[in-house]
Amino acid sequence: MGLKHAVEAALKNPDRSHRKLWATREGVESLDGELPSDFPVEWAQPADLARLVAKDAPHQGLVLECAPLDDMFLADVLDGDPARPVVVLDQVTDPHNVGAIMRSAAAFDACCIVTQDRHAPPESGTLAKSASGALEVLPGSRGEPRPRTRGNRRSGLLAHRPGWIGRIDARRGPSHRPGRTRARRRGDGMRHNITQHCDAIAKLPISEAMESLNVSNAAAIALYAAATRETE
Amino acid sequence: MGLKHAVEAALKNPDRSHRKLWATREGVESLDGELPSDFPVEWAQPADLARLVAKDAPHQGLVLECAPLDDMFLADVLDGDPARPVVVLDQVTDPHNVGAIMRSAAAFDACCIVTQDRHAPPESGTLAKSASGALEVLPGSRGEPRPRTRGNRRSGLLAHRPGWIGRIDARRGPSHRPGRTRARRRGDGMRHNITQHCDAIAKLPISEAMESLNVSNAAAIALYAAATRETE
Repeated sequence: MGLKHAVEAALKNPDRSHRKLWATREGVESLDGELPSDFPVEWAQPADLARLVAKDAPHQGLVLECAPLDDMFLADVLDGDPARPVVVLDQVTDPHNVGAIMRSAAAFDACCIVTQDRHAPPESGTLAKSASGALEVLPGSRGEPRPRTRGNRRSGLLAHRPGWIGRIDARRGPSHRPGRTRARRRGDGMRHNITQHCDAIAKLPISEAMESLNVSNAAAIALYAAATRETE
Repeated sequence: MGLKHAVEAALKNPDRSHRKLWATREGVESLDGELPSDFPVEWAQPADLARLVAKDAPHQGLVLECAPLDDMFLADVLDGDPARPVVVLDQVTDPHNVGAIMRSAAAFDACCIVTQDRHAPPESGTLAKSASGALEVLPGSRGEPRPRTRGNRRSGLLAHRPGWIGRIDARRGPSHRPGRTRARRRGDGMRHNITQHCDAIAKLPISEAMESLNVSNAAAIALYAAATRETE
């Protein structure tokens, strides 16, 4: 899955402000006539496009210059359906991981994704490619993820949402209710003050050979487990 | 999770032939005395180490120069326990994805991983970092993944293993038995002749908003689903 899918999805999104498409002839042909005839295109060679994108993002003959989507207020995206998960990321900084989590969140019909104001990667080519179009369909909100406090207009709203607030721990161990002793352990990934506001902590039933899973893999398992439990 | 974990795991593996450790003073100190005193160390500055690794692999003051592990024959790693999955990758080329799948495979106690002779990424810093130590504990075997044929000494052995052979399709849709009509669709990722040898094709229960999941996320869900079904 390369950048082509992300560019196609961004072109189709009416909420996305586009500036210019850098493309090879083959790149535009691969869009199968989906590009409006008056769209500003800068014709380029593959080597020029490679300089515009991250080293590990194959451009497939297309690079779209566009503005990031506006952040949304959580109040505007919460739809009151407690069956739809809200994904909140704390301390997840790798754009491959954030993009893959957005892709899985959209695939499992999450209501929205909340990322941090700081310590979260910006919308980039790498993130967009990993998200594979999810950036265009999954509402995103930024703010300090404090589910139980009311100080933050955006994520504080989670406290009033029906359902429980769970934390996924990508490490080995039994699931449990958050307690002071366990939550004080170091290297958690998620910060202590966030953990303390969760109703439950879900851990993964993994072998002793490994300490933890990749965070996007852990998120995908959690979304799958939540989705299949509700329908069983 | 950075390169430090991969380097520590490789240093502890007696089957791994090490050549030299490039390190900063802080990097060696972070190993907490685990490095044998006669180990060949080349002291370096962080900027020197950055030139030795892939752009997106934080070195954390440690770069280990070592030989790839020997490939193993599948006959030597299959232990006859049908409860342990064997992970076979076809057409998975991104080292982040292969590394993350190895990490999840080791975490869910897979017996081994089979990758292709060709079209599979070599052991690299990016793959090792994504695998987070799994390279050292999960036996790997290379060969054309032909589960039902006997032409290949390595992967042909799967035909004689108890249990069924399933294929995970990272795309949306109901699970089914492989049939000619469905299997002929393009862009499958897995090749047609491999699909035809599977007993069942498992698809993901995902929404229409997304076409597919990241391959390592799909693999993690499959490993989790297999592990939890067996223990229910």
